[in-house]
Amino acid sequence: MPRIAYVDGRYVPHDSATVHIEDRGFQFADGVYEVVTVVNGRLADEEGHLARLARSLDELRIAWPVTPQTLKMIMRQMVVRNRMADALLYIQITRGRAPRDFKFPAKAAPTLVLTCRRTKFQSPRQLADGVPVVTIPDIRWLRRDIKSVSLLPQVLGKQQAVEKGAFEAWQIDPDGTVTEGCSSNAWIVTEAGALVTRPASSLILNGITRQSLIRLAAGLGIPFEERAFTLDEAYRAKEAFISSASTFVLPVTSIDGKPVGNGKPGPLGRQLRQAYMNHVGTPDPVPLPAENA
Amino acid sequence: MPRIAYVDGRYVPHDSATVHIEDRGFQFADGVYEVVTVVNGRLADEEGHLARLARSLDELRIAWPVTPQTLKMIMRQMVVRNRMADALLYIQITRGRAPRDFKFPAKAAPTLVLTCRRTKFQSPRQLADGVPVVTIPDIRWLRRDIKSVSLLPQVLGKQQAVEKGAFEAWQIDPDGTVTEGCSSNAWIVTEAGALVTRPASSLILNGITRQSLIRLAAGLGIPFEERAFTLDEAYRAKEAFISSASTFVLPVTSIDGKPVGNGKPGPLGRQLRQAYMNHVGTPDPVPLPAENA
Repeated sequence: MPRIAYVDGRYVPHDSATVHIEDRGFQFADGVYEVVTVVNGRLADEEGHLARLARSLDELRIAWPVTPQTLKMIMRQMVVRNRMADALLYIQITRGRAPRDFKFPAKAAPTLVLTCRRTKFQSPRQLADGVPVVTIPDIRWLRRDIKSVSLLPQVLGKQQAVEKGAFEAWQIDPDGTVTEGCSSNAWIVTEAGALVTRPASSLILNGITRQSLIRLAAGLGIPFEERAFTLDEAYRAKEAFISSASTFVLPVTSIDGKPVGNGKPGPLGRQLRQAYMNHVGTPDPVPLPAENA
Repeated sequence: MPRIAYVDGRYVPHDSATVHIEDRGFQFADGVYEVVTVVNGRLADEEGHLARLARSLDELRIAWPVTPQTLKMIMRQMVVRNRMADALLYIQITRGRAPRDFKFPAKAAPTLVLTCRRTKFQSPRQLADGVPVVTIPDIRWLRRDIKSVSLLPQVLGKQQAVEKGAFEAWQIDPDGTVTEGCSSNAWIVTEAGALVTRPASSLILNGITRQSLIRLAAGLGIPFEERAFTLDEAYRAKEAFISSASTFVLPVTSIDGKPVGNGKPGPLGRQLRQAYMNHVGTPDPVPLPAENA
């Protein structure tokens, strides 16, 4: 069965799904996106993703191409038509096609594109061993709160990480604090045992998984500090992990080659991952490693 | 006769010219571009634009989709097939189509797209009266020397300019200096009569028209200082103008509503514009205003 994509009102074979070369998404990165994870056929944190999509569109003054209600229907259709139980659903909205000119076009219908891809989530090895991260200067623009497709700095950052054998690159602000990963939020557990992540501002993307984890941590009574932390503090952390729609909670066991804590995934990250997997309505899709903290 | 576009080896009707929805230009702004002005059928500063394209591709490690020699042939074909004497030739190269993933794909053929659009260049009124600019904070990423399609900040800046009745927005660095316009370089003539523009660095795009103007100014014996200038200095300037491939040299007669000098286009800008128009092999396409400085 061929993969199906959605483009502006039509379900089309993925291979032949196209947009016009003067789509402002292609020429100006003038668009926004969301990635929603489908776990056992269920859309994880769907309402959170739709709320952030609404905010991104609003910030850029791009109109909804369809109503949110219709988008939800299309999302479900995509899962059904692609017959995927565990998948990443990608939604992109651009300002649409218009003769090339920087300013907003007077007339342009926003473009709506969805793709769906089967995924296996994290490997048992990644969960058992954790992943390495490296750090790079944060060279991005100053409206990182908008989930736009203007992602070239993140592409270059992720490529640097991969070339250094790492899974993710944490970006460092000129003031020495960690902003976030290229496609994930950054978390540490301090020597004193407090869970720390940076507050939402224009300097980071307010992750939907991040928001759910903050709520879940409160429910679990985990001491939590929402504040910026320095790279130096991260080097000294007892635990570290990243969060994102596609990785959920993934332990970080080294930063710039230095082991985090004892170099193994820690108990607090594991507890939060379990809580998150329960929150999205499924036990962890891969077996958790045995006690190793 | 329909407009013709070029996409990956084919000349196609502009209206039906498309790229795949997983083209990295559409999903990640992972691509570069050039705009070459065609004046009386001739490509203005072609070698400069191709040299900068080579540099942008090199910085992003995107391969040439065709050889530079073939690209030059395609550029000429575009002008001929579209039968346009005065036109903007737009060239975009992306890292190509690949399953969505931030890091560079192992296998992806770069995408090459060209469009051609008839243009009338500046109106006699713009040349006679000059244009207003406003200023905004420079919120862009820190690799502005790469002419990438990651242009969302410039889109938002230009839109702000338009909504304030201005032609362009000059972006101001945190240190109070002017970086450049959203799609042009910024120039002033100081009270002492020196021509000033910011040196090329990662904080601005090194305009091809900018580079030609620096050479032309030297040939004309115009006192020139290549240095950053503050907004305050711009407010006190005798003259100001912008340069770009599509505007050549366009006088700026007000900044944030304050008149520049006597509020009329100045003689030095006019002299440089004439020199540039001669350089690209044509007198000014519209009559110059009478002496008004």
